[in-house]
Amino acid sequence: MTRNTDNQSSAGQSIAADELRLLIERIERLEEEKKAMADDIRDVYAEAKARGYDPKTMRAIVRLRKIEAHVRQEAEALLDVYKDALGMS
Amino acid sequence: MTRNTDNQSSAGQSIAADELRLLIERIERLEEEKKAMADDIRDVYAEAKARGYDPKTMRAIVRLRKIEAHVRQEAEALLDVYKDALGMS
Repeated sequence: MTRNTDNQSSAGQSIAADELRLLIERIERLEEEKKAMADDIRDVYAEAKARGYDPKTMRAIVRLRKIEAHVRQEAEALLDVYKDALGMS
Repeated sequence: MTRNTDNQSSAGQSIAADELRLLIERIERLEEEKKAMADDIRDVYAEAKARGYDPKTMRAIVRLRKIEAHVRQEAEALLDVYKDALGMS
């Protein structure tokens, strides 16, 4: 027996290798999907550039809109808290 | 007329605002999906941690497997080039 079985490490520490492998593979599939999204985003910027738009300025707009969305969401959340407190919800 | 129309900037530079808006919105949808993937990945690490696995070590494993996959893919690509060159494909 020179080879470890799936469920036993050489140190004798028991590891559920199959469970661990499944978790790792789930992460890898999600990482692949995330990478595909990142590639798609790059493609849209490339397409925009080909149509004459400046990608750097577009990235600035995306950042600004994200900040605006956050600010609006925070304001709405706070409004909900106040409405709840005053029995207006 | 104190307000710019959609297709005309104050500098008089013509911009296809609708086209630009659609491109920005496509990017934002993809960014959201990418974020959802990143959230899912974090959830899997949290689940793994709850089951007693060490997330830091798992991240190291994911990195190692990625490197191994790249090395294997490069080797396979080079093998294909040589096979093509020798008329073996």
